[in-house]
Amino acid sequence: MTDTARRPGATVPVRATTVREGRHDERSDRVATEEPLEIRIARGADADFPLAVTMRTPGNDFELAVGLLVSEGIVRSGDDVVSVRYCSEAEQLYNVVTVQLRGDVTIDRAHLARNLTMSSACGVCGKASIDAIRTEACAPIAPGPVVDGDVVAALPHRLREHQRLFESTGGLHAAGLFDATGGLAFVREDVGRHNAVDKIVGALCMQGLLPVSDRVLVVSGRASFEIMQKAAAAGIGFVAAVGAPSSLAVQTAQELGITLCGFVRDGGFNMYAGQQRVG
Amino acid sequence: MTDTARRPGATVPVRATTVREGRHDERSDRVATEEPLEIRIARGADADFPLAVTMRTPGNDFELAVGLLVSEGIVRSGDDVVSVRYCSEAEQLYNVVTVQLRGDVTIDRAHLARNLTMSSACGVCGKASIDAIRTEACAPIAPGPVVDGDVVAALPHRLREHQRLFESTGGLHAAGLFDATGGLAFVREDVGRHNAVDKIVGALCMQGLLPVSDRVLVVSGRASFEIMQKAAAAGIGFVAAVGAPSSLAVQTAQELGITLCGFVRDGGFNMYAGQQRVG
Repeated sequence: MTDTARRPGATVPVRATTVREGRHDERSDRVATEEPLEIRIARGADADFPLAVTMRTPGNDFELAVGLLVSEGIVRSGDDVVSVRYCSEAEQLYNVVTVQLRGDVTIDRAHLARNLTMSSACGVCGKASIDAIRTEACAPIAPGPVVDGDVVAALPHRLREHQRLFESTGGLHAAGLFDATGGLAFVREDVGRHNAVDKIVGALCMQGLLPVSDRVLVVSGRASFEIMQKAAAAGIGFVAAVGAPSSLAVQTAQELGITLCGFVRDGGFNMYAGQQRVG
Repeated sequence: MTDTARRPGATVPVRATTVREGRHDERSDRVATEEPLEIRIARGADADFPLAVTMRTPGNDFELAVGLLVSEGIVRSGDDVVSVRYCSEAEQLYNVVTVQLRGDVTIDRAHLARNLTMSSACGVCGKASIDAIRTEACAPIAPGPVVDGDVVAALPHRLREHQRLFESTGGLHAAGLFDATGGLAFVREDVGRHNAVDKIVGALCMQGLLPVSDRVLVVSGRASFEIMQKAAAAGIGFVAAVGAPSSLAVQTAQELGITLCGFVRDGGFNMYAGQQRVG
């Protein structure tokens, strides 16, 4: 279950014209690759079917696929996954990934259809969305670790040091998983900020590390509901965002007991929930 | 077809603890509201059905719903829309919007289902995604206006001046529509950067202004494929992004003849396509 076939590059060369103070200079540049990835599910001897297509930066595609299944509440541990493979038939070989699940994994296709259009018969509201997370998390969310304030403040800098693709393109989101002393476990990059987190969650799942209650998830952008949902699905109890949190991210953190820090930048940060776990 | 009922606020008060140099200061803060919006379609006397749920910042919900339908290729002009209303039955009154379409508007539900999971029987790749835009745009995309380089460089600053919600929360995306001299036509904000563009497109549609070939779309974040798709659906031939473009955004701009500027910041910018329209 390794992700060795990485045919499409993560960045692409382009010609760009830089305009500054009236001067036009043509030069070579690199941009982050964005390509669709179709994620398919197969279970036992059943025919596979498409779950979703996401626009992503190629690389760690298997982790992305598995992470999305964890976030959707279908996969709860690495044992649920038999194999992950690129489509062997399609012309677009590297843009279709099939996750083969064990025969006894429950797939509620009606529930999935609801989730993917995110519709709900009982009314849509933030509160209902939070309640749904509770039932879909792979385990009860344990409180996150206690982390020193100086360590929290330094996390984005540590993340940036490992953002290899950002350095060459200036345009990729990153997610990192750190321990309570600021040690880096994983870093993943993607044009989609949700994808970067799915790749982290998928990596944890494929290495048999779910749930992870003692780690801190750091995201290079804002903290939205979906980011909190993915953290909760992996059992992560501490989220630090370089950007602002949304109202529903704050509410989710408060209700599920997740520590949430936002605006982690310039040597300081704000805490919106779980303040007792920042030393 | 006005959007006067704006019960949920665009920002929410929260308590936050600011941590800086070892000091913890509790204070009042505001965060951007994030709540789900279910968008439903009705046509003629047919029963309505749910199209999608998007996490959004309340405000301009009708524009968001109509803009999404334009982006999906269902609505091509304001004439296609009979009315837009909040659900009168649901408990979550302001989180469900129904767009009533004329009886002769074509809705290909199989095509829609494909679009929303974004799946495709003929293989998924960037090129196929661009081809799909061509058939779904409301009109051939006319070349964008010629804009002076100094005007382009100043657009993000002009956008920021009108980002009312960003000022209070530090955490909202914005999209703005400008004329070739830098005059502002519309600005919309949302926690979702795609939503901010959908609100612009919806406003244009509801005011009978589609397609708009002589305007510049400015986005506060990166330029992804989806941003270009929405611009193309509205006929917009000039896109300027504060952040980086993705590979597929550049390719889309080149193939459809859209001028694309990225990294529009600090008094300069890069051009990736349609360079001849920057003076």
